[in-house]
Amino acid sequence: MYRTHTCGELRAAHAGQTVTVSGWVNRRRDHGGVAFFDLRDRSGVVQITINPNLPQETLDLVANVRFEWVLQIEGAVQKRPEGNANPNMATGDVEIIAQKVTALNPAKTLPFMISSDADLPDENTRLKYRYLDLRRERLTHNMILRHKVVKFMRDYLDAQGFIEIETPIMFKATPEGARDYLVPSRLFPGQFYALPQSPQQLKQLLMVAGMDKYFQIARCFRDEDLRGDRQPEFTQLDLEMSFVHRDDVLQLVENLYTEMIPAVAPNKRLLSAPWKKIPYREALEKYGTDKPDLRFGMELQDVSDVFAKSEFKVFQSALENGGVIKCIVAPNSAGMSRKEIDALTEVAKSFGAKGMPTLTLTAEGPKGSAAKFISAEEIESLKSKIQFGEGDLILFASDAKAVANKVLGGLRLWFRDKLNLADENLMAFAWIVDFPFFAFNEETQMWESEHHPFTMPKMADLPKFETNPGEVFSEAYDMVCNGYEMASGSIRIHRRDIQMKMFQMLGLSDEEIKAKFGHMLEAFEYGAPPHGGMAPGIDRLIMLLADEPNIREVIAFPKNQNGRDVMADAPSEVEAKQLKELHIKFS
Amino acid sequence: MYRTHTCGELRAAHAGQTVTVSGWVNRRRDHGGVAFFDLRDRSGVVQITINPNLPQETLDLVANVRFEWVLQIEGAVQKRPEGNANPNMATGDVEIIAQKVTALNPAKTLPFMISSDADLPDENTRLKYRYLDLRRERLTHNMILRHKVVKFMRDYLDAQGFIEIETPIMFKATPEGARDYLVPSRLFPGQFYALPQSPQQLKQLLMVAGMDKYFQIARCFRDEDLRGDRQPEFTQLDLEMSFVHRDDVLQLVENLYTEMIPAVAPNKRLLSAPWKKIPYREALEKYGTDKPDLRFGMELQDVSDVFAKSEFKVFQSALENGGVIKCIVAPNSAGMSRKEIDALTEVAKSFGAKGMPTLTLTAEGPKGSAAKFISAEEIESLKSKIQFGEGDLILFASDAKAVANKVLGGLRLWFRDKLNLADENLMAFAWIVDFPFFAFNEETQMWESEHHPFTMPKMADLPKFETNPGEVFSEAYDMVCNGYEMASGSIRIHRRDIQMKMFQMLGLSDEEIKAKFGHMLEAFEYGAPPHGGMAPGIDRLIMLLADEPNIREVIAFPKNQNGRDVMADAPSEVEAKQLKELHIKFS
Repeated sequence: MYRTHTCGELRAAHAGQTVTVSGWVNRRRDHGGVAFFDLRDRSGVVQITINPNLPQETLDLVANVRFEWVLQIEGAVQKRPEGNANPNMATGDVEIIAQKVTALNPAKTLPFMISSDADLPDENTRLKYRYLDLRRERLTHNMILRHKVVKFMRDYLDAQGFIEIETPIMFKATPEGARDYLVPSRLFPGQFYALPQSPQQLKQLLMVAGMDKYFQIARCFRDEDLRGDRQPEFTQLDLEMSFVHRDDVLQLVENLYTEMIPAVAPNKRLLSAPWKKIPYREALEKYGTDKPDLRFGMELQDVSDVFAKSEFKVFQSALENGGVIKCIVAPNSAGMSRKEIDALTEVAKSFGAKGMPTLTLTAEGPKGSAAKFISAEEIESLKSKIQFGEGDLILFASDAKAVANKVLGGLRLWFRDKLNLADENLMAFAWIVDFPFFAFNEETQMWESEHHPFTMPKMADLPKFETNPGEVFSEAYDMVCNGYEMASGSIRIHRRDIQMKMFQMLGLSDEEIKAKFGHMLEAFEYGAPPHGGMAPGIDRLIMLLADEPNIREVIAFPKNQNGRDVMADAPSEVEAKQLKELHIKFS
Repeated sequence: MYRTHTCGELRAAHAGQTVTVSGWVNRRRDHGGVAFFDLRDRSGVVQITINPNLPQETLDLVANVRFEWVLQIEGAVQKRPEGNANPNMATGDVEIIAQKVTALNPAKTLPFMISSDADLPDENTRLKYRYLDLRRERLTHNMILRHKVVKFMRDYLDAQGFIEIETPIMFKATPEGARDYLVPSRLFPGQFYALPQSPQQLKQLLMVAGMDKYFQIARCFRDEDLRGDRQPEFTQLDLEMSFVHRDDVLQLVENLYTEMIPAVAPNKRLLSAPWKKIPYREALEKYGTDKPDLRFGMELQDVSDVFAKSEFKVFQSALENGGVIKCIVAPNSAGMSRKEIDALTEVAKSFGAKGMPTLTLTAEGPKGSAAKFISAEEIESLKSKIQFGEGDLILFASDAKAVANKVLGGLRLWFRDKLNLADENLMAFAWIVDFPFFAFNEETQMWESEHHPFTMPKMADLPKFETNPGEVFSEAYDMVCNGYEMASGSIRIHRRDIQMKMFQMLGLSDEEIKAKFGHMLEAFEYGAPPHGGMAPGIDRLIMLLADEPNIREVIAFPKNQNGRDVMADAPSEVEAKQLKELHIKFS
């Protein structure tokens, strides 16, 4: 038997027992002829003491033992002498006095240290040796946390009457949305399966099938250009319910998260229930984004009316062009240097601003680049409208509303990070609702679905479909938290006539509709129930719960930022015979 | 609100309550001006009564309602009059007296009836309308059973300290084993990801990473020629453990199944624990196969010594050529007609037999095609060796041992089905152990790994690696049940030197080893723990538990027997633009 106990479970109560443990050498110290190992397994670390009275053979073996060797130790658990206990170790009250030492496998010198998170090597090195990097306490913890989160979700949904159903990974190419990963078929030359971007169609068909409440921890695939924090494959809690309205779905998921987070991450705090439901347009107005970080204030303020008669050319022309004048108040930032302001102006420009007028109140009067263009009267009017005082810095954006929102939304987050305005242990969830149904694509001059083409419009807006598509709202919703979109969902179309109208609005021909979505339209004719659902992302949730900077830290074997698995070296070339069997050629 | 209750939950205790339910019209009857619907949702069926005193508008609507319309009904639950209760329905004590009827969605005439399993349409029609076929009680039950089984596995393994870890679906092509499905990379022209045939390498790397006990309900992919009951993608309970010997793994899985099966399928019976461990060669000797059905006897008997001096040419020449004479005894089958015996002989030939000598004892003496070649002495000797009597039919196979085993193994199953020898509610699990490590491929004249190249040989056999590969046994094991292979596993190689030797025995060059398995070999040098695991199939298990004839009945959206999704029509052609982006051409 390789072990009678795990390393991490030994306590004072085990003292006197003879035990066998197996694990990795986490540390070694030699002290007065005695060698001490910290032996580690997934459960924790225990101290092994190698006395010099052991057989010479054992001592010779022990002399060679280095970091990360795999040892099996048989020995007696002993309470450490008074004063020698280590309160920082769960097993710190005891040590194992080794009687027998077996080297199960030696280890070469590792490419990097894993017992410390200081001096992390570059990420590609970490990924190449992922099987070593995962030995870090931090990454092991992330894997266990992920397991717990997903387990909690499954248990919760099972108790609520959901059933988990696996849907195919090899499915049909639907070039709507993002780019598909394709799988050439050997048996059907020239034809391809596609990896699902999500099980959207399949979960809707499960509702048509009467499955009522479905979920799946679903792998999804998108062949997008990899920028930022994206992976070619990612995981979502895919769920769908029949006979529900929007708020039924939101309540279910809100309850799940509200119970789950304290259970899996007790260090995290939630805003008190119920979560805010913020209309999409309000989110843009207040936060400049549809994924607001609600952990702090600094809301965007519209002060167009204050400056209706402004002499300031920049303000004037914005208003004349139908734009707005908005501002945010950065607390205690009046003292920013010229240089800092210049740098920040560049940030504002990166969001589309042409400039970044500022204003502060000082004992000597108004200062800042806008000060000389703003009258005393306007300052009084501003004071009555927004909260600010000496020491605060007002930043203005005067532009088309969308641009002003984007600029100030960006600056708001910049100040969040600079001034540490957001409590990192707070998870500030909210719902974004009342999305527009269509978005006009200026490039193609076509209306596109803002969510996806299976989303239900608000029934009251149906008459505006053709006459005023921009004023149609949808039954879509997002879950946001701390500035991230955490989930997206909607009540779906379950009527063939509405679905058909939708496809037609998107410019699809009848032939295209039939070829790509014929099975969906047909399904809706055989008694499709009203239904809706959501797909909370798993990777980002774990990232936030684990306080990690990116999702690669919470995925066992992630691709790097170029979409490569640098450990196994994938993608890679294959044999000519394989391509021939698949009837494809590299071109 | 679409519903206050589900259809199936209503009981006498709800009488007097006003409820709202939504569901599908399962049946309608009209009787004396009153219409009765059976309204169905996933939870069950409830009777709705539509009295003629409802508003004309409602009655007009109701007049149009057909099978599978989706209705919302508001009404009062009422206890059915004495004598009118339906004991076959869980809700049979009550009915809902409708006050309000809303048609949520009408339904066209369905392509087939779903309320009965009689007259099933052909399978492709069922699969094309899978979203309707799944409404069948039987298939809905299969989906729920599958959910329960997988849930039980997860809960059990979680309680045993396993953590579930997701491994990539887009991984590296390894042309060993079956054929890979490939995914062309857009960002790396000419390179391909592969869908995993199993997470084998990744789970071993998780052990190197110290994850200790891992599992995953894992999707696996094999591009095999589709014969019999295979799917391009299938699901397995993938598990791996560190610091274990063979019996640790077997015991864990045996305990899991022993607790699970009564919990999820109370109608099933298990053989009493512990499960038999049958060496591979013994399985072949006794049952003619390494996946024996242990629900009945009819074991293969070696009677070579009885016929050592046989005058029967067929027996003689088999023995002279180093073969064997084996037989099975088919109970109460002496009366089989000439025609039946001829047909059965063809079955035997399909397994490789040249003929099928038979023998029966009758009051008038021995009969059957072998009778005249068998002496009275030989019959006496046979009687002392094997159990048979009047009315039984002895079938002989005299050939090379492998052929004789295969023929009689095949005939044994033929009689199982003909004579109903196997209790269909018995799950007769067993372990097959002590597999040979290598198999000699006559075609390529090369040794191949019998299991897969990561399987550990029995350490005692290591010296025979080069000198006598055919006598090396492995630490592999299979779980079998009722004639099916249900799982396969092994203790793995964790030492680089053994792994290297293995690859070399398989004829791989150093370059090939490095390109394909370099990361595995390297991982073994940094402290790989001893480890092993198993991968029980999920699809076949559910199939057996649900008494289904094939795995397609227990998969939500299976491919048909040609590997096509006939519902969504996949695989299918894609746009030229997509192929161009992937740098591939159809050739």
